[in-house]
Amino acid sequence: MSATVTRWIGFRHDGAAGFGRLDGETITVFEGDLFGAPTETGRTLPLAEVTLDLPCRPSKLIALWNNFGALAEKLELSRPEAPLFLIKPANTYRPSGATIPVPEASGRALYEGELAIVIGKAARDVSEAEAMDHVFGFTCINDVTSAAILKADASFTQWARAKGLDGFGPFGPVVATGLDPETLTVRTLVNGRERQNFPISDMLMPVARLVSLLSQGMTLEPGDLIACGTSVGSGPIPKGATVEVVIDGIGTLTNRFD
Amino acid sequence: MSATVTRWIGFRHDGAAGFGRLDGETITVFEGDLFGAPTETGRTLPLAEVTLDLPCRPSKLIALWNNFGALAEKLELSRPEAPLFLIKPANTYRPSGATIPVPEASGRALYEGELAIVIGKAARDVSEAEAMDHVFGFTCINDVTSAAILKADASFTQWARAKGLDGFGPFGPVVATGLDPETLTVRTLVNGRERQNFPISDMLMPVARLVSLLSQGMTLEPGDLIACGTSVGSGPIPKGATVEVVIDGIGTLTNRFD
Repeated sequence: MSATVTRWIGFRHDGAAGFGRLDGETITVFEGDLFGAPTETGRTLPLAEVTLDLPCRPSKLIALWNNFGALAEKLELSRPEAPLFLIKPANTYRPSGATIPVPEASGRALYEGELAIVIGKAARDVSEAEAMDHVFGFTCINDVTSAAILKADASFTQWARAKGLDGFGPFGPVVATGLDPETLTVRTLVNGRERQNFPISDMLMPVARLVSLLSQGMTLEPGDLIACGTSVGSGPIPKGATVEVVIDGIGTLTNRFD
Repeated sequence: MSATVTRWIGFRHDGAAGFGRLDGETITVFEGDLFGAPTETGRTLPLAEVTLDLPCRPSKLIALWNNFGALAEKLELSRPEAPLFLIKPANTYRPSGATIPVPEASGRALYEGELAIVIGKAARDVSEAEAMDHVFGFTCINDVTSAAILKADASFTQWARAKGLDGFGPFGPVVATGLDPETLTVRTLVNGRERQNFPISDMLMPVARLVSLLSQGMTLEPGDLIACGTSVGSGPIPKGATVEVVIDGIGTLTNRFD
């Protein structure tokens, strides 16, 4: 892969939404379609002067289950033949920096630090060899889950509701392009203390295979996210805690949970 | 409820998308936000001169499981305490009239005729008494499912993938307002032969209760759809068959499956 890493950020400034390339603490503002051919406006903004917004607006957020070797071994799960997933609805999306209220009725929420693939070009029935041409980049995601809701009904595991509450899918702060995902490591910190630290190279289905298999019969659209699943170390979020999902090369997704 | 029923339709005409009120075979064209205060443009179009489009663009499509008395009895399922659901992604949306290719690898698709609630006003944590103020109207939906995919992995029921393939969530042809859902009947016809015929009054959770319970912790947005679940009589769609979901007072959703 290319050695040039570009980080795309979404922001709000003076009441309007915008996006641009983040270089250190400066945003070079672009306009047009991030997944088309965006053009530089000639403006720059200091990162400190904007409010972070989502780096893209997925038409769907696919969240994988059982996609890491270490977690499969711990839970004694067999290696799946197909990607196993649920859909997180748009009301779960929140940018880095957002505070996320956890409803009393959902009990304690769990953090799940994950890498997310960001689709750049529509993909339907693509081969593994073609798949990377449809990947734009990568971001950090916290696939927040209510364990109490998940198992509340013995007849039907409530993946969609347990992972579908408002704000339960924050992602960002940027979409980074030009990274080799096999080199990345996901770390999750709760109130500054490291709780997860796992390599993407342990994924049961690596990125190209995931994209190819998910695209069979199901079109992946530009801006769609594939949350690649979490590994060992997921746990409860204490009330008022700050959770960070850190992927070196991408950045740090930071959210407080009230 | 009001005795005045209004049917809102989406269309494409001369390469542009539009919407309006359908009166018999004539569309009175509107502009603005269907869920805000849309205004008449003064134009009308004959229904025969447009291509049907989706009547709205849901930010999420919630699909209920186990919500009818007759089906619960047949399958020996107990009455759930909370709405049990999955999310169908946006790539499933198709208007009435669209032909839907079924991928070879997904095996035979099943039809499931259903009533869908269309949200009109954002709803979060609303009570049952408030819920109907947030309902805009109703439409017909076919919650198409690949039975082969659903049960392919013993460790994880693949609701999202089995019901998430391209075109597996056609809905329309209109959103009808001013109907009392308790009086409605859903019929599903395969190549003109009736295969399902069940009353909405058999729903385990009626509309107001569904909307209230689903809105707890999860914001329902204007245009969002809640597919209320199917009842007895669901079955396979023969290759090349035309499936109609008919709800008197709303209309007929018609799709061919290739």
